[in-house]
Amino acid sequence: MALIVQKYGGTSVGSIERIQTVAKKVKAFADTGNKLVVSVSAMSGETNRMTALAQEIQDTPSLREMDVLLTTGEQVSISLLSMALQQLGCDAISYMGSQIRITTDSEHGKARIKSIDTQRIHTSLDEGKVVVVAGFQGVDEQGNITTLGRGGSDTTAVALAAALKADECQIYTDVDGVYTTDPRIEPNARKMKSVSYEEMLEMASLGSKVLQIRSVEFASKYKVPLRVLSSLIDNPTGTLITSEENIMEQAVISGIAHNKDEAKLSLIGVPDEPGIAHKILKPISEANIEVDMIVQSVSAREGLTNFAFTVHRSDFDKAQKILKDVCGNLNAKAVQSDSTVVKVSLVGIGMRSHAGIAAQMFEVLHQENVNIQMISTSEIKISVVIDEKYLELAVRSLHSAFELDKE
Amino acid sequence: MALIVQKYGGTSVGSIERIQTVAKKVKAFADTGNKLVVSVSAMSGETNRMTALAQEIQDTPSLREMDVLLTTGEQVSISLLSMALQQLGCDAISYMGSQIRITTDSEHGKARIKSIDTQRIHTSLDEGKVVVVAGFQGVDEQGNITTLGRGGSDTTAVALAAALKADECQIYTDVDGVYTTDPRIEPNARKMKSVSYEEMLEMASLGSKVLQIRSVEFASKYKVPLRVLSSLIDNPTGTLITSEENIMEQAVISGIAHNKDEAKLSLIGVPDEPGIAHKILKPISEANIEVDMIVQSVSAREGLTNFAFTVHRSDFDKAQKILKDVCGNLNAKAVQSDSTVVKVSLVGIGMRSHAGIAAQMFEVLHQENVNIQMISTSEIKISVVIDEKYLELAVRSLHSAFELDKE
Repeated sequence: MALIVQKYGGTSVGSIERIQTVAKKVKAFADTGNKLVVSVSAMSGETNRMTALAQEIQDTPSLREMDVLLTTGEQVSISLLSMALQQLGCDAISYMGSQIRITTDSEHGKARIKSIDTQRIHTSLDEGKVVVVAGFQGVDEQGNITTLGRGGSDTTAVALAAALKADECQIYTDVDGVYTTDPRIEPNARKMKSVSYEEMLEMASLGSKVLQIRSVEFASKYKVPLRVLSSLIDNPTGTLITSEENIMEQAVISGIAHNKDEAKLSLIGVPDEPGIAHKILKPISEANIEVDMIVQSVSAREGLTNFAFTVHRSDFDKAQKILKDVCGNLNAKAVQSDSTVVKVSLVGIGMRSHAGIAAQMFEVLHQENVNIQMISTSEIKISVVIDEKYLELAVRSLHSAFELDKE
Repeated sequence: MALIVQKYGGTSVGSIERIQTVAKKVKAFADTGNKLVVSVSAMSGETNRMTALAQEIQDTPSLREMDVLLTTGEQVSISLLSMALQQLGCDAISYMGSQIRITTDSEHGKARIKSIDTQRIHTSLDEGKVVVVAGFQGVDEQGNITTLGRGGSDTTAVALAAALKADECQIYTDVDGVYTTDPRIEPNARKMKSVSYEEMLEMASLGSKVLQIRSVEFASKYKVPLRVLSSLIDNPTGTLITSEENIMEQAVISGIAHNKDEAKLSLIGVPDEPGIAHKILKPISEANIEVDMIVQSVSAREGLTNFAFTVHRSDFDKAQKILKDVCGNLNAKAVQSDSTVVKVSLVGIGMRSHAGIAAQMFEVLHQENVNIQMISTSEIKISVVIDEKYLELAVRSLHSAFELDKE
């Protein structure tokens, strides 16, 4: 008998009919003798509806009250799913975050889980009940309702699995697993049977939308086997995200991630002197703009250098404006900006022990005449910034060159 | 500086615009230096919407899960009202029933309040905040969410006022007070400045819809001055419901209540023997039908008597069917039934010390040729059952005869 935590997202519980479908899946799973804890999100659309209500009142509503408002969404879902299970003859009980003391810090809107009191869940499981838990929500030590922020329902599921020492945490979503790359770009993209936490973390941070980074971090930290599966098909197998040592045959390269939300800014002809990077980036970070890749050219002549970095495209205008001021202050020659770049990344734990992956990657891109504008590497990934018109070409040629379509 | 508990019903918070109107009223009240605790219902329509969702799943959903579902309604209201207050520059904080430990028994759907932990409320009040509390909901000793049942938001407000020893509990509603009788029937009906708990209780149980009986009982028990006011007009004075001794000039008759939801059933020619009332009423009560007035005629001849009682009109068909069986079992002669009767009641504490009120009432009705079918009296009320076609005539002639239109 296994103890499984399952998580169903907003689309999966987006209507009464879908809730009934989820209930059937859960019941079938419980009927095979598993102990089940099910974490659910708000019905799709509800969070937006409530945010709109709040914004009719205040542009920036109180974060505390916003959390009180938004957590009603999951509260509705857990009660309806429990009823649907009971209607099928499957005993079930719902718990809000506050009822099982999903204790968080007091950062409303983006709280972090500190502990979960599992006693009540264990009691209900021992009574033969399916336990249905509201995702996304917690309670701080003063009893204020908190939310975990975007993707918080995934985090709830993983945290529950960690606290309960569950055998597996299953995240049901609208994709059926983690692919070697985006199947909309490369039809030969292959669903992976398993991938390591580290690779998944890199892919998530590089633009893969399958799982939120925090839930993968959590799973990695507590060694929770995490499975991504489709809620739309029967008997899905999905992709297992687990520790490196549990993956039998590790490929050199696991996947190719891409991120279209990039924009590049360059400061041309700045004096090449100590502290220059700090002088350029301080006003950017003070404006709460996150900087991703940074490249400072080797000083060419006249003691001048070029300095380039990428930001999220939504911050592009703001960053450009700031950089123009910086340009004046530092007596730099010009600001160059380009909001039509993308980032393409190779990810794979095998890189650690295989030299020459980067060279091979650059060679493939060179053969396709794709100009590389920036490069950034880590132990298990290589990212390049290229013109967005080459995105599909780059992904497909790399996918093929590294034989990712083959098992 | 007074401590006031205010309650706004679902219609008063039925839209963002209305919530903003309530916020203005609350702020104006707080600005005059009062400490304010505001209890609110769910936005009108929300409870029905959620009940409909649940009933798509189960005809009779689990009461526990139903409470989890329904309490989201007030949770939405408290957060939105708190935001609206903050938007006006009025510091406010919301609390759910579970957060201020409105502890109830475990009777989901109709729980009774056992205690309220006022410490958190007092702390927030002392910080200069308006405290916004979700009505209708509580939490049992195991931490399960409960609801107080119909009219529960009024009960929450009165219970808060009692626990906080508030100076007054103000119930804002769509009528501007308690009238001597229904103004839709008698245009000369007069709004009372004050009325005693006892009279209000009688009026509520006799069909006056202004306040729920439980909230009046609660107010009476804990001597909470209760005021009913209109949320639709500015500076309303309403009607104060208070202890008898606080009412300066007590009228003999305070008001005339009526109830249209009556139905009369009679068993003709039953043996007049001990235990007969029990034999007739036991199957009725076993079917969960509430019996109101009961009249057993004086035995006439042949040891036979007639037995009549009234039930709620919605129970009429069911009761009629049961009574036909009883008729056969007891060898009674016939069942007579009439679903076109109404109850009209005179209420007044002054009756205790004034003899002859009943005689005067019957005289008035006799003069108007209104036939009295049943009579029931208590210390402070006289009720008669009459044909519904006489309802308006009876109310108006009694209102005039007892000079209720005069102060």
